[in-house]
Amino acid sequence: MLWTNYLLPTQKEVRIEGEDTASLRLTLQAGLIRQLASGIYTFLPFGLAVLRRIEDVVREEMNRAGAVELLMPALQPTSLWKESDRYQLLGKDIVSFSFKDRHDRELLLGPTHEEVIVDVARHEILSYRQLPITLYQIQTKFRDEMRPRFGLVRGREFLMKDAYSFDTDTDGLDVSYQKMSEAYHRIFRRLRIKYHTDQADSGAMGGKFSEEFVAEGECPELEIGHLFKLGTAYSEKMRAVFLDEQGRQRPFVMGCYGIGVSRLIAAVIENNFDADGIIWPIPVAPFRLHLIPLNYGQPNIKAMADRIYQSALEAGLPVLMDNRDRSAGEKFKDADLVGIPYQVVIGKRAVEGKIDFRIRRTREQITMAPEEVVAKILAFPAE
Amino acid sequence: MLWTNYLLPTQKEVRIEGEDTASLRLTLQAGLIRQLASGIYTFLPFGLAVLRRIEDVVREEMNRAGAVELLMPALQPTSLWKESDRYQLLGKDIVSFSFKDRHDRELLLGPTHEEVIVDVARHEILSYRQLPITLYQIQTKFRDEMRPRFGLVRGREFLMKDAYSFDTDTDGLDVSYQKMSEAYHRIFRRLRIKYHTDQADSGAMGGKFSEEFVAEGECPELEIGHLFKLGTAYSEKMRAVFLDEQGRQRPFVMGCYGIGVSRLIAAVIENNFDADGIIWPIPVAPFRLHLIPLNYGQPNIKAMADRIYQSALEAGLPVLMDNRDRSAGEKFKDADLVGIPYQVVIGKRAVEGKIDFRIRRTREQITMAPEEVVAKILAFPAE
Repeated sequence: MLWTNYLLPTQKEVRIEGEDTASLRLTLQAGLIRQLASGIYTFLPFGLAVLRRIEDVVREEMNRAGAVELLMPALQPTSLWKESDRYQLLGKDIVSFSFKDRHDRELLLGPTHEEVIVDVARHEILSYRQLPITLYQIQTKFRDEMRPRFGLVRGREFLMKDAYSFDTDTDGLDVSYQKMSEAYHRIFRRLRIKYHTDQADSGAMGGKFSEEFVAEGECPELEIGHLFKLGTAYSEKMRAVFLDEQGRQRPFVMGCYGIGVSRLIAAVIENNFDADGIIWPIPVAPFRLHLIPLNYGQPNIKAMADRIYQSALEAGLPVLMDNRDRSAGEKFKDADLVGIPYQVVIGKRAVEGKIDFRIRRTREQITMAPEEVVAKILAFPAE
Repeated sequence: MLWTNYLLPTQKEVRIEGEDTASLRLTLQAGLIRQLASGIYTFLPFGLAVLRRIEDVVREEMNRAGAVELLMPALQPTSLWKESDRYQLLGKDIVSFSFKDRHDRELLLGPTHEEVIVDVARHEILSYRQLPITLYQIQTKFRDEMRPRFGLVRGREFLMKDAYSFDTDTDGLDVSYQKMSEAYHRIFRRLRIKYHTDQADSGAMGGKFSEEFVAEGECPELEIGHLFKLGTAYSEKMRAVFLDEQGRQRPFVMGCYGIGVSRLIAAVIENNFDADGIIWPIPVAPFRLHLIPLNYGQPNIKAMADRIYQSALEAGLPVLMDNRDRSAGEKFKDADLVGIPYQVVIGKRAVEGKIDFRIRRTREQITMAPEEVVAKILAFPAE
């Protein structure tokens, strides 16, 4: 990608209303997101690319754990919430995002999907032969927070991964739960997030046991993942049953498992930054190489930069080239700010056939020939 | 994927309320989607996989045309629609999906994103040096249709690709428009959709010229793509300007370009089915190979089926194995219904080291050794 064909509006300074955190400051300054309304954000191209990379890590680990992906709608009839007895418990954060449609039927914007998945299960999972199964989605959720804050950490529209396990009995649930727990550890380790786990009050989820994953960082909010053993709370209320081997009707034994996917952008940043900007872990970085020709108008430099750019593309290495007409200082500052793992500076020593190869995380700098760049990067571990 | 670990609830018959079409009948019967409320659907795993494959084709062609992906929120402050003068034009399909949040600020669920993208542009695109640029998203849209119908064709919550081009002048717009038009032709050809194009009334979009892509099929609805030259209609009203080479403020010259992504599932089916079910074009098929061991409990058959399954996975060939305890007839019917391009039947002749290889589209059947299956499939064109 050429910078001039992209939309990566970095900012020297940002004005933050209310509480400040490194992740909020850096997501704005590095041009990842922009606020449209309180707690509602647009993901600009670089921010969306990060989000998709995080999604892919989550999806890979869910699939590895045997979970199956589907996609439920954001709009839900509130009648389902009456069946589960949660309708009267709804707080203003959910009620104020509910409304009546043109035919006077009440809908809400889903903050979670237990009711919908149980409705799917009671129609489509009829026999013990179809169990166990864990279904998940990566989907936009809504919640009219009293006080949206810290950018992507506590928003009103956000991306979640929510998984739901269905088993014949509690022993089965323990196995399904354990698989999800292991997947969560793998996900957060791959994303280089330091975290701890806590047992927690399962509250409105109505279950018996729950555990939360909490990220380290200066941001005081932060639950990033949550696992619940729901048991038969929902399936009994909503009459979601399967036929067991003896042909008897029994309620599904359920678990549910959430990850705040868009919130993970903030958690990754809180765990991977320095005074100059973000340091993306490799599995999350939208580009692997940041090419910095210092004077792209100069033919030698342009030729060398274009050659490295092409060889990176041919090797399947995602590359961003800063072909703007800006000073060296501005380009260096922006490169450190947006935090692509490897930087290549093409400057005065281009005439000698030399470039500077920089590693963003360690600040290591190596002088090498331009032909060596791609092989050097490919030799680093991909995670 | 093993059928028993998946959720693919095919149905012998479906009961359709209201108007019937092949695509609605087949999306329900093949277990792709389920209705949650009028015009609101869950994508079951197979349906979601098809949706993602279609998304990928759209994304590839958008990127090839140089468009840059971002992601705007579903929730929009109606104040933006007052700026563009569209607020008073809103029909009930949009107004009934608007509401006030807990702080009494009015929000709507976006049916389209002109206002939001113009708001992004007026803050982030300041100079002619950043132009031209075409930004797009693949995002969930909402519209409280009076009469949702034909399943995914006219729903109340649906997936769209919407792109917006920004140019310095109308010559630039012509170029950007042309690139999108070419991308649309490539997309619909790759998806094997027969279509024609019409010049159309640009209506509420407020522009000067527009063109629509209409799919063939029995479904009377089915616009699948739409291109508009908006000119400066939005940028003038919303004061979205850039500085030209002379340092003068000028309004962006815009175009907008939509594709109904979830609707394309219906269009693909309408153009690719027969009396027995769906015939997925290769670029859309979630699995390339459907393995049908006729008696998976029989050790010879199981061993051969498992061997083909493993060799497909190792070759990166997505494979579904029907390991259910069902009759041959049921398995054949389901295989034809769900429409995976290549079927391999492992039956009585397994003892002779033979399987039946079937091509869903042509009904061709070839007897071969199990070791030949993967190479045979890889030898077919990937599109």
